[in-house]
Amino acid sequence: MKIDSYDGNGKEKEAATRIPDNHPRAHSLRVRERMKDAVEAGLVHPTGLIAHGRGEAFDYLLGERTSPEALEAIAEAARRIHQARQPVLSVNGNVVALAAGEIVRLQQAYPRLGIEVNLFHRTAERVDRLAAVLEAAGATGVLGREPDARIPGLTSDRAMCCKAGIGDADVVLVPLEDGDRAQALVAMDKTVITIELNPLSRTANAAHITIVDELTRVLPLLAEALRNPSPPAPFDGSDNLARSRKRMAAGLEL
Amino acid sequence: MKIDSYDGNGKEKEAATRIPDNHPRAHSLRVRERMKDAVEAGLVHPTGLIAHGRGEAFDYLLGERTSPEALEAIAEAARRIHQARQPVLSVNGNVVALAAGEIVRLQQAYPRLGIEVNLFHRTAERVDRLAAVLEAAGATGVLGREPDARIPGLTSDRAMCCKAGIGDADVVLVPLEDGDRAQALVAMDKTVITIELNPLSRTANAAHITIVDELTRVLPLLAEALRNPSPPAPFDGSDNLARSRKRMAAGLEL
Repeated sequence: MKIDSYDGNGKEKEAATRIPDNHPRAHSLRVRERMKDAVEAGLVHPTGLIAHGRGEAFDYLLGERTSPEALEAIAEAARRIHQARQPVLSVNGNVVALAAGEIVRLQQAYPRLGIEVNLFHRTAERVDRLAAVLEAAGATGVLGREPDARIPGLTSDRAMCCKAGIGDADVVLVPLEDGDRAQALVAMDKTVITIELNPLSRTANAAHITIVDELTRVLPLLAEALRNPSPPAPFDGSDNLARSRKRMAAGLEL
Repeated sequence: MKIDSYDGNGKEKEAATRIPDNHPRAHSLRVRERMKDAVEAGLVHPTGLIAHGRGEAFDYLLGERTSPEALEAIAEAARRIHQARQPVLSVNGNVVALAAGEIVRLQQAYPRLGIEVNLFHRTAERVDRLAAVLEAAGATGVLGREPDARIPGLTSDRAMCCKAGIGDADVVLVPLEDGDRAQALVAMDKTVITIELNPLSRTANAAHITIVDELTRVLPLLAEALRNPSPPAPFDGSDNLARSRKRMAAGLEL
Protein backbone atom coordinates (compact mmCIF):
# COMPACT_ATOMS: atom_id res chain seq x y z
CA MET A 1 0.00 0.00 0.00
CA LYS A 2 1.35 3.40 -0.92
CA ILE A 3 1.42 6.21 1.58
CA ASP A 4 -0.76 8.46 -0.56
CA SER A 5 -3.49 5.85 -0.62
CA TYR A 6 -3.46 5.57 3.18
CA ASP A 7 -6.76 6.96 4.35
CA GLY A 8 -6.44 6.05 8.01
CA ASN A 9 -9.32 3.64 8.06
CA GLY A 10 -8.30 0.95 5.60
CA LYS A 11 -11.85 0.12 4.51
CA GLU A 12 -10.82 -1.42 1.23
CA LYS A 13 -8.32 -3.68 2.89
CA GLU A 14 -10.88 -4.81 5.44
CA ALA A 15 -13.22 -6.06 2.78
CA ALA A 16 -10.38 -7.90 1.11
CA THR A 17 -9.47 -9.89 4.21
CA ARG A 18 -12.95 -11.34 4.54
CA ILE A 19 -13.56 -10.94 8.26
CA PRO A 20 -17.00 -12.49 8.70
CA ASP A 21 -19.51 -9.86 9.87
CA ASN A 22 -20.90 -12.31 12.37
CA HIS A 23 -17.56 -12.78 14.11
CA PRO A 24 -18.07 -11.63 17.73
CA ARG A 25 -14.79 -9.68 17.69
CA ALA A 26 -15.34 -8.13 14.23
CA HIS A 27 -14.77 -4.55 15.46
CA SER A 28 -11.54 -5.42 17.19
CA LEU A 29 -10.38 -7.49 14.20
CA ARG A 30 -10.95 -4.49 11.94
CA VAL A 31 -8.92 -2.12 14.12
CA ARG A 32 -6.21 -4.76 13.85
CA GLU A 33 -6.47 -4.71 10.06
CA ARG A 34 -6.09 -0.93 10.17
CA MET A 35 -2.90 -1.24 12.22
CA LYS A 36 -1.62 -3.84 9.78
CA ASP A 37 -2.30 -1.43 6.89
CA ALA A 38 -0.32 1.24 8.75
CA VAL A 39 2.64 -1.16 8.91
CA GLU A 40 2.37 -1.77 5.18
CA ALA A 41 2.25 1.98 4.58
CA GLY A 42 5.51 2.37 6.52
CA LEU A 43 3.88 4.31 9.36
CA VAL A 44 4.10 1.74 12.13
CA HIS A 45 7.08 -0.45 12.96
CA PRO A 46 6.00 -4.11 12.90
CA THR A 47 6.73 -4.53 16.60
CA GLY A 48 4.25 -1.70 17.15
CA LEU A 49 1.56 -4.30 16.40
CA ILE A 50 2.75 -6.31 19.41
CA ALA A 51 2.52 -3.22 21.61
CA HIS A 52 -0.99 -2.66 20.29
CA GLY A 53 -1.92 -6.20 21.28
CA ARG A 54 -0.66 -5.69 24.82
CA GLY A 55 -2.84 -2.64 25.09
CA GLU A 56 -5.85 -4.58 23.81
CA ALA A 57 -5.47 -7.11 26.63
CA PHE A 58 -5.49 -4.46 29.34
CA ASP A 59 -8.37 -2.61 27.67
CA TYR A 60 -10.32 -5.84 27.70
CA LEU A 61 -9.87 -5.94 31.49
CA LEU A 62 -11.25 -2.39 31.68
CA GLY A 63 -14.34 -3.48 29.76
CA GLU A 64 -13.19 -1.17 26.92
CA ARG A 65 -14.63 1.84 28.79
CA THR A 66 -13.14 5.03 30.22
CA SER A 67 -12.97 4.62 34.01
CA PRO A 68 -13.56 7.27 36.71
CA GLU A 69 -9.80 7.09 37.42
CA ALA A 70 -9.03 7.93 33.80
CA LEU A 71 -11.45 10.89 33.91
CA GLU A 72 -9.65 12.27 36.99
CA ALA A 73 -6.26 11.85 35.29
CA ILE A 74 -7.53 13.57 32.12
CA ALA A 75 -8.76 16.56 34.16
CA GLU A 76 -5.39 16.84 35.91
CA ALA A 77 -3.54 16.51 32.61
CA ALA A 78 -5.58 19.38 31.15
CA ARG A 79 -4.78 21.59 34.16
CA ARG A 80 -1.03 20.90 33.85
CA ILE A 81 -1.05 21.55 30.10
CA HIS A 82 -2.87 24.86 30.72
CA GLN A 83 -0.26 25.95 33.23
CA ALA A 84 2.67 24.94 31.00
CA ARG A 85 5.11 27.36 29.40
CA GLN A 86 5.78 25.02 26.44
CA PRO A 87 3.46 21.98 26.32
CA VAL A 88 4.16 19.35 23.66
CA LEU A 89 2.44 16.22 22.42
CA SER A 90 5.00 13.58 21.38
CA VAL A 91 3.60 11.11 18.84
CA ASN A 92 4.93 7.85 17.42
CA GLY A 93 3.71 5.52 14.66
CA ASN A 94 1.04 3.75 16.69
CA VAL A 95 -0.34 7.06 17.96
CA VAL A 96 -0.67 8.53 14.46
CA ALA A 97 -2.07 5.32 12.95
CA LEU A 98 -4.72 5.02 15.65
CA ALA A 99 -5.64 8.65 16.13
CA ALA A 100 -4.50 11.13 13.44
CA GLY A 101 -7.94 12.76 13.34
CA GLU A 102 -8.21 12.98 17.13
CA ILE A 103 -4.76 14.59 17.31
CA VAL A 104 -5.80 17.28 14.84
CA ARG A 105 -8.98 18.00 16.80
CA LEU A 106 -6.91 18.22 20.00
CA GLN A 107 -4.66 20.79 18.35
CA GLN A 108 -7.70 22.73 17.15
CA ALA A 109 -9.11 22.71 20.69
CA TYR A 110 -5.82 23.95 22.15
CA PRO A 111 -3.46 25.39 19.52
CA ARG A 112 -0.73 26.16 22.10
CA LEU A 113 0.01 22.40 22.27
CA GLY A 114 2.96 21.60 20.00
CA ILE A 115 3.14 18.29 18.12
CA GLU A 116 6.42 16.45 17.62
CA VAL A 117 6.92 13.14 15.84
CA ASN A 118 9.38 11.16 17.96
CA LEU A 119 10.09 7.50 17.29
CA PHE A 120 11.61 4.57 19.15
CA HIS A 121 12.61 2.88 15.87
CA ARG A 122 13.60 6.17 14.25
CA THR A 123 14.22 6.65 10.54
CA ALA A 124 14.06 10.03 8.82
CA GLU A 125 11.72 8.52 6.24
CA ARG A 126 9.20 7.29 8.79
CA VAL A 127 9.25 10.62 10.68
CA ASP A 128 8.50 12.31 7.38
CA ARG A 129 5.65 9.96 6.53
CA LEU A 130 4.01 10.37 9.92
CA ALA A 131 4.29 14.16 9.80
CA ALA A 132 2.76 14.05 6.31
CA VAL A 133 -0.19 11.96 7.54
CA LEU A 134 -0.84 14.46 10.35
CA GLU A 135 -0.58 17.41 7.97
CA ALA A 136 -2.91 15.74 5.49
CA ALA A 137 -5.39 15.35 8.35
CA GLY A 138 -5.10 19.08 9.12
CA ALA A 139 -2.29 19.46 11.68
CA THR A 140 0.00 22.48 11.48
CA GLY A 141 3.55 23.16 12.66
CA VAL A 142 4.39 19.48 13.11
CA LEU A 143 7.92 19.12 14.52
CA GLY A 144 10.35 16.22 14.31
CA ARG A 145 11.85 16.27 10.84
CA GLU A 146 14.86 18.35 11.86
CA PRO A 147 16.02 17.27 15.30
CA ASP A 148 18.40 19.74 16.97
CA ALA A 149 18.43 18.53 20.59
CA ARG A 150 19.00 15.32 22.55
CA ILE A 151 17.38 13.60 25.51
CA PRO A 152 20.27 12.80 27.88
CA GLY A 153 20.70 9.19 28.98
CA LEU A 154 19.41 7.54 25.81
CA THR A 155 21.60 5.73 23.32
CA SER A 156 21.61 6.24 19.55
CA ASP A 157 18.79 7.77 17.54
CA ARG A 158 16.28 7.31 20.34
CA ALA A 159 17.70 10.49 21.94
CA MET A 160 16.99 12.85 19.04
CA CYS A 161 14.34 15.55 19.45
CA CYS A 162 13.55 19.20 18.65
CA LYS A 163 14.33 22.21 20.88
CA ALA A 164 11.08 23.88 19.86
CA GLY A 165 9.23 20.72 20.89
CA ILE A 166 10.31 18.14 23.45
CA GLY A 167 13.76 19.67 23.94
CA ASP A 168 12.62 22.84 25.71
CA ALA A 169 9.17 21.65 26.78
CA ASP A 170 8.21 21.82 30.45
CA VAL A 171 5.17 19.53 30.00
CA VAL A 172 5.26 16.54 27.62
CA LEU A 173 2.18 14.49 26.78
CA VAL A 174 3.62 11.24 25.46
CA PRO A 175 1.12 8.44 24.80
CA LEU A 176 2.19 4.80 24.27
CA GLU A 177 5.82 5.53 25.16
CA ASP A 178 8.78 3.24 25.81
CA GLY A 179 9.76 3.04 29.48
CA ASP A 180 13.36 4.14 28.93
CA ARG A 181 12.33 7.31 27.22
CA ALA A 182 9.57 8.13 29.70
CA GLN A 183 12.11 7.80 32.50
CA ALA A 184 14.63 9.93 30.61
CA LEU A 185 12.05 12.72 30.19
CA VAL A 186 11.25 12.60 33.91
CA ALA A 187 14.98 12.83 34.62
CA MET A 188 15.04 16.06 32.57
CA ASP A 189 12.62 17.54 35.14
CA LYS A 190 9.80 17.79 32.66
CA THR A 191 6.24 17.04 33.74
CA VAL A 192 5.43 13.79 31.94
CA ILE A 193 1.85 12.83 31.13
CA THR A 194 1.18 9.51 29.43
CA ILE A 195 -1.77 7.60 28.02
CA GLU A 196 -1.06 3.94 28.60
CA LEU A 197 -3.24 0.89 29.11
CA ASN A 198 -0.70 -1.18 31.05
CA PRO A 199 -0.78 0.14 34.62
CA LEU A 200 2.26 -1.99 35.52
CA SER A 201 4.56 -0.69 32.79
CA ARG A 202 7.62 1.40 33.54
CA THR A 203 6.10 4.25 31.56
CA ALA A 204 2.91 4.17 33.64
CA ASN A 205 4.92 4.20 36.83
CA ALA A 206 7.50 6.78 35.74
CA ALA A 207 5.05 9.43 34.49
CA HIS A 208 3.66 12.13 36.76
CA ILE A 209 0.18 11.59 35.35
CA THR A 210 -0.84 8.29 33.75
CA ILE A 211 -4.16 8.16 31.99
CA VAL A 212 -4.97 4.43 31.99
CA ASP A 213 -7.29 4.30 29.03
CA GLU A 214 -7.43 3.73 25.28
CA LEU A 215 -5.94 6.53 23.17
CA THR A 216 -8.88 7.27 20.85
CA ARG A 217 -11.27 7.46 23.79
CA VAL A 218 -8.94 9.81 25.72
CA LEU A 219 -8.07 12.43 23.11
CA PRO A 220 -11.60 13.82 22.57
CA LEU A 221 -12.12 13.97 26.34
CA LEU A 222 -8.80 15.76 26.75
CA ALA A 223 -9.72 18.23 24.00
CA GLU A 224 -12.95 19.01 25.84
CA ALA A 225 -11.09 19.39 29.16
CA LEU A 226 -8.64 21.80 27.53
CA ARG A 227 -11.51 23.88 26.20
CA ASN A 228 -13.21 23.96 29.59
CA PRO A 229 -10.63 23.31 32.31
CA SER A 230 -12.05 22.17 35.62
CA PRO A 231 -11.13 23.87 38.91
CA PRO A 232 -8.03 22.55 40.72
CA ALA A 233 -8.60 19.27 42.57
CA PRO A 234 -6.28 17.07 44.57
CA PHE A 235 -4.62 14.39 42.43
CA ASP A 236 -2.47 11.50 43.64
CA GLY A 237 -0.91 9.71 40.68
CA SER A 238 0.06 6.54 42.47
CA ASP A 239 -3.33 6.20 44.15
CA ASN A 240 -4.98 6.76 40.77
CA LEU A 241 -2.86 4.00 39.21
CA ALA A 242 -3.58 1.63 42.09
CA ARG A 243 -7.31 2.11 41.59
CA SER A 244 -6.95 1.35 37.87
CA ARG A 245 -5.10 -1.85 38.74
CA LYS A 246 -7.87 -2.85 41.16
CA ARG A 247 -10.48 -2.20 38.50
CA MET A 248 -8.65 -4.48 36.06
CA ALA A 249 -8.22 -7.15 38.73
CA ALA A 250 -11.99 -7.08 39.28
CA GLY A 251 -12.37 -7.57 35.51
CA LEU A 252 -10.38 -10.79 35.82
CA GLU A 253 -12.26 -12.20 38.73
CA LEU A 254 -15.62 -11.63 37.00
CA MET B 1 13.91 -12.03 4.30
CA LYS B 2 13.60 -15.21 2.28
CA ILE B 3 12.09 -18.33 3.76
CA ASP B 4 15.27 -20.37 3.23
CA SER B 5 17.24 -17.88 5.32
CA TYR B 6 14.73 -18.12 8.18
CA ASP B 7 16.53 -19.80 11.04
CA GLY B 8 13.88 -19.36 13.69
CA ASN B 9 15.96 -17.13 15.92
CA GLY B 10 16.64 -14.09 13.76
CA LYS B 11 19.99 -13.29 15.37
CA GLU B 12 21.24 -11.25 12.42
CA LYS B 13 18.13 -9.16 12.35
CA GLU B 14 18.35 -8.52 16.06
CA ALA B 15 21.79 -7.01 15.74
CA ALA B 16 20.57 -4.85 12.91
CA THR B 17 17.76 -3.28 14.92
CA ARG B 18 20.11 -2.09 17.66
CA ILE B 19 18.18 -3.01 20.77
CA PRO B 20 20.44 -1.74 23.56
CA ASP B 21 21.69 -4.63 25.72
CA ASN B 22 21.00 -2.59 28.82
CA HIS B 23 17.31 -2.21 27.99
CA PRO B 24 15.38 -3.84 30.87
CA ARG B 25 13.03 -5.57 28.44
CA ALA B 26 15.77 -6.69 26.02
CA HIS B 27 14.70 -10.36 26.09
CA SER B 28 11.09 -9.56 25.39
CA LEU B 29 12.08 -7.06 22.67
CA ARG B 30 14.13 -9.77 20.97
CA VAL B 31 11.28 -12.29 20.95
CA ARG B 32 9.30 -9.50 19.32
CA GLU B 33 11.99 -9.07 16.66
CA ARG B 34 11.81 -12.81 16.00
CA MET B 35 8.05 -12.62 15.47
CA LYS B 36 8.56 -9.67 13.16
CA ASP B 37 11.07 -11.70 11.14
CA ALA B 38 8.50 -14.50 10.88
CA VAL B 39 6.04 -12.00 9.38
CA GLU B 40 8.64 -10.90 6.86
CA ALA B 41 9.33 -14.56 5.99
CA GLY B 42 5.62 -15.05 5.25
CA LEU B 43 5.08 -17.42 8.19
CA VAL B 44 2.98 -15.22 10.43
CA HIS B 45 0.08 -13.01 9.38
CA PRO B 46 0.75 -9.42 10.51
CA THR B 47 -2.26 -9.48 12.84
CA GLY B 48 -0.60 -12.47 14.53
CA LEU B 49 1.77 -9.91 16.07
CA ILE B 50 -1.18 -8.27 17.77
CA ALA B 51 -2.30 -11.62 19.17
CA HIS B 52 1.24 -12.18 20.42
CA GLY B 53 1.11 -8.84 22.22
CA ARG B 54 -2.15 -9.76 23.95
CA GLY B 55 -0.53 -12.93 25.20
CA GLU B 56 2.48 -10.98 26.47
CA ALA B 57 0.21 -8.83 28.64
CA PHE B 58 -1.42 -11.81 30.32
CA ASP B 59 1.94 -13.55 30.73
CA TYR B 60 3.22 -10.44 32.46
CA LEU B 61 0.39 -10.82 34.99
CA LEU B 62 1.48 -14.44 35.58
CA GLY B 63 5.01 -13.26 36.33
CA GLU B 64 6.13 -15.11 33.16
CA ARG B 65 6.14 -18.38 35.11
CA THR B 66 4.25 -21.67 34.79
CA SER B 67 1.63 -21.76 37.53
CA PRO B 68 0.44 -24.77 39.59
CA GLU B 69 -2.87 -24.52 37.67
CA ALA B 70 -1.03 -24.83 34.36
CA LEU B 71 0.86 -27.89 35.64
CA GLU B 72 -2.43 -29.58 36.57
CA ALA B 73 -3.89 -28.79 33.16
CA ILE B 74 -0.76 -30.12 31.40
CA ALA B 75 -1.01 -33.42 33.33
CA GLU B 76 -4.68 -33.78 32.39
CA ALA B 77 -3.92 -32.91 28.76
CA ALA B 78 -1.28 -35.66 28.63
CA ARG B 79 -3.75 -38.20 30.05
CA ARG B 80 -6.39 -37.30 27.46
CA ILE B 81 -3.89 -37.47 24.61
CA HIS B 82 -2.74 -40.90 25.84
CA GLN B 83 -6.30 -42.19 25.84
CA ALA B 84 -7.09 -40.76 22.40
CA ARG B 85 -7.74 -42.83 19.29
CA GLN B 86 -6.43 -40.08 16.95
CA PRO B 87 -4.76 -37.17 18.78
CA VAL B 88 -3.69 -34.20 16.68
CA LEU B 89 -1.75 -30.99 17.29
CA SER B 90 -3.14 -28.13 15.18
CA VAL B 91 -0.54 -25.43 14.53
CA ASN B 92 -0.79 -21.94 13.03
CA GLY B 93 1.81 -19.33 12.07
CA ASN B 94 2.39 -17.97 15.56
CA VAL B 95 2.78 -21.48 16.99
CA VAL B 96 5.40 -22.49 14.42
CA ALA B 97 7.27 -19.17 14.64
CA LEU B 98 7.48 -19.35 18.41
CA ALA B 99 8.05 -23.06 18.90
CA ALA B 100 9.09 -25.09 15.84
CA GLY B 101 11.82 -26.86 17.82
CA GLU B 102 9.56 -27.57 20.78
CA ILE B 103 6.93 -29.04 18.44
CA VAL B 104 9.48 -31.45 16.94
CA ARG B 105 10.62 -32.54 20.39
CA LEU B 106 6.99 -33.10 21.38
CA GLN B 107 6.49 -35.31 18.35
CA GLN B 108 9.68 -37.22 19.20
CA ALA B 109 8.42 -37.74 22.76
CA TYR B 110 5.05 -39.00 21.53
CA PRO B 111 5.08 -39.98 17.83
CA ARG B 112 1.36 -40.94 17.86
CA LEU B 113 0.51 -37.22 18.00
CA GLY B 114 -0.27 -35.99 14.47
CA ILE B 115 0.65 -32.45 13.38
CA GLU B 116 -1.60 -30.41 11.08
CA VAL B 117 -0.98 -26.88 9.85
CA ASN B 118 -4.32 -25.10 10.06
CA LEU B 119 -4.61 -21.34 9.57
CA PHE B 120 -7.13 -18.62 10.34
CA HIS B 121 -5.81 -16.48 7.47
CA ARG B 122 -5.30 -19.47 5.18
CA THR B 123 -3.32 -19.42 1.96
CA ALA B 124 -1.89 -22.55 0.35
CA GLU B 125 1.48 -20.84 0.18
CA ARG B 126 1.62 -20.06 3.88
CA VAL B 127 0.52 -23.61 4.81
CA ASP B 128 3.34 -24.88 2.66
CA ARG B 129 5.92 -22.56 4.21
CA LEU B 130 4.95 -23.49 7.73
CA ALA B 131 5.02 -27.22 6.97
CA ALA B 132 8.46 -26.71 5.40
CA VAL B 133 9.76 -24.94 8.53
CA LEU B 134 8.53 -27.81 10.71
CA GLU B 135 10.06 -30.41 8.39
CA ALA B 136 13.37 -28.52 8.29
CA ALA B 137 13.33 -28.63 12.10
CA GLY B 138 12.80 -32.43 11.99
CA ALA B 139 9.03 -33.00 12.02
CA THR B 140 7.60 -35.87 9.96
CA GLY B 141 4.18 -36.53 8.42
CA VAL B 142 3.05 -32.91 8.68
CA LEU B 143 -0.54 -32.57 7.45
CA GLY B 144 -2.39 -29.57 6.09
CA ARG B 145 -1.24 -29.11 2.51
CA GLU B 146 -4.08 -31.15 1.02
CA PRO B 147 -7.26 -30.48 2.95
CA ASP B 148 -10.02 -33.05 2.31
CA ALA B 149 -12.48 -32.31 5.12
CA ARG B 150 -14.36 -29.37 6.61
CA ILE B 151 -15.18 -28.13 10.11
CA PRO B 152 -18.95 -27.53 10.09
CA GLY B 153 -20.19 -24.08 11.10
CA LEU B 154 -17.22 -22.07 9.81
CA THR B 155 -17.33 -19.85 6.75
CA SER B 156 -14.84 -19.85 3.90
CA ASP B 157 -11.31 -21.23 4.03
CA ARG B 158 -11.27 -21.28 7.82
CA ALA B 159 -13.23 -24.56 7.66
CA MET B 160 -10.67 -26.54 5.67
CA CYS B 161 -8.80 -29.40 7.36
CA CYS B 162 -7.50 -32.96 6.81
CA LYS B 163 -9.38 -36.17 7.56
CA ALA B 164 -6.16 -37.86 8.72
CA GLY B 165 -5.62 -34.95 11.13
CA ILE B 166 -8.25 -32.68 12.65
CA GLY B 167 -11.09 -34.11 10.54
CA ASP B 168 -11.21 -37.54 12.20
CA ALA B 169 -9.38 -36.65 15.43
CA ASP B 170 -11.06 -37.34 18.75
CA VAL B 171 -8.61 -35.16 20.70
CA VAL B 172 -7.27 -31.88 19.26
CA LEU B 173 -4.51 -29.87 20.92
CA VAL B 174 -4.91 -26.43 19.42
CA PRO B 175 -2.73 -23.68 20.93
CA LEU B 176 -3.40 -19.96 20.31
CA GLU B 177 -6.67 -20.61 18.50
CA ASP B 178 -9.42 -18.29 17.33
CA GLY B 179 -12.60 -18.53 19.42
CA ASP B 180 -14.88 -19.39 16.51
CA ARG B 181 -12.82 -22.36 15.52
CA ALA B 182 -12.34 -23.62 19.07
CA GLN B 183 -16.10 -23.56 19.52
CA ALA B 184 -16.64 -25.30 16.18
CA LEU B 185 -14.27 -28.12 17.20
CA VAL B 186 -16.12 -28.53 20.51
CA ALA B 187 -19.39 -28.68 18.56
CA MET B 188 -17.91 -31.60 16.58
CA ASP B 189 -17.71 -33.52 19.89
CA LYS B 190 -13.94 -33.56 19.88
CA THR B 191 -12.00 -33.13 23.10
CA VAL B 192 -10.39 -29.72 22.71
CA ILE B 193 -7.21 -28.82 24.59
CA THR B 194 -5.78 -25.34 24.20
CA ILE B 195 -2.74 -23.39 25.33
CA GLU B 196 -3.84 -19.81 25.77
CA LEU B 197 -2.68 -16.96 27.98
CA ASN B 198 -5.98 -15.06 28.01
CA PRO B 199 -8.20 -16.83 30.54
CA LEU B 200 -11.19 -14.71 29.49
CA SER B 201 -11.05 -15.54 25.79
CA ARG B 202 -13.74 -17.55 24.07
CA THR B 203 -11.16 -20.19 23.22
CA ALA B 204 -10.11 -20.51 26.87
CA ASN B 205 -13.73 -20.88 27.92
CA ALA B 206 -14.81 -23.18 25.09
CA ALA B 207 -12.00 -25.74 25.42
CA HIS B 208 -12.31 -28.78 27.67
CA ILE B 209 -8.79 -28.22 28.97
CA THR B 210 -7.15 -24.79 28.89
CA ILE B 211 -3.49 -24.58 29.78
CA VAL B 212 -3.09 -20.93 30.79
CA ASP B 213 0.61 -20.52 30.14
CA GLU B 214 3.14 -19.47 27.53
CA LEU B 215 3.55 -21.90 24.62
CA THR B 216 7.31 -22.46 24.72
CA ARG B 217 7.19 -23.14 28.45
CA VAL B 218 4.31 -25.61 28.06
CA LEU B 219 5.49 -27.83 25.21
CA PRO B 220 8.59 -29.29 26.95
CA LEU B 221 6.51 -29.97 30.08
CA LEU B 222 3.84 -31.65 27.96
CA ALA B 223 6.48 -33.77 26.21
CA GLU B 224 7.73 -34.93 29.60
CA ALA B 225 4.18 -35.65 30.80
CA LEU B 226 3.52 -37.72 27.65
CA ARG B 227 6.68 -39.73 28.28
CA ASN B 228 5.73 -40.34 31.91
CA PRO B 229 1.98 -39.96 32.33
CA SER B 230 0.82 -39.32 35.86
CA PRO B 231 -1.96 -41.39 37.49
CA PRO B 232 -5.54 -40.19 36.98
CA ALA B 233 -6.50 -37.21 39.13
CA PRO B 234 -9.67 -35.18 39.38
CA PHE B 235 -9.67 -32.15 37.04
CA ASP B 236 -12.24 -29.37 36.90
CA GLY B 237 -11.55 -27.14 33.90
CA SER B 238 -13.62 -24.18 35.01
CA ASP B 239 -12.20 -24.23 38.53
CA ASN B 240 -8.71 -24.40 37.02
CA LEU B 241 -9.44 -21.36 34.83
CA ALA B 242 -10.92 -19.44 37.76
CA ARG B 243 -7.76 -20.03 39.77
CA SER B 244 -5.62 -18.76 36.87
CA ARG B 245 -7.74 -15.62 36.72
CA LYS B 246 -7.32 -15.09 40.45
CA ARG B 247 -3.56 -15.48 40.11
CA MET B 248 -3.46 -12.81 37.39
CA ALA B 249 -5.67 -10.52 39.45
CA ALA B 250 -3.19 -10.84 42.32
CA GLY B 251 -0.45 -9.89 39.83
CA LEU B 252 -2.31 -6.64 39.18
CA GLU B 253 -2.89 -5.72 42.78
CA LEU B 254 0.80 -6.19 43.68
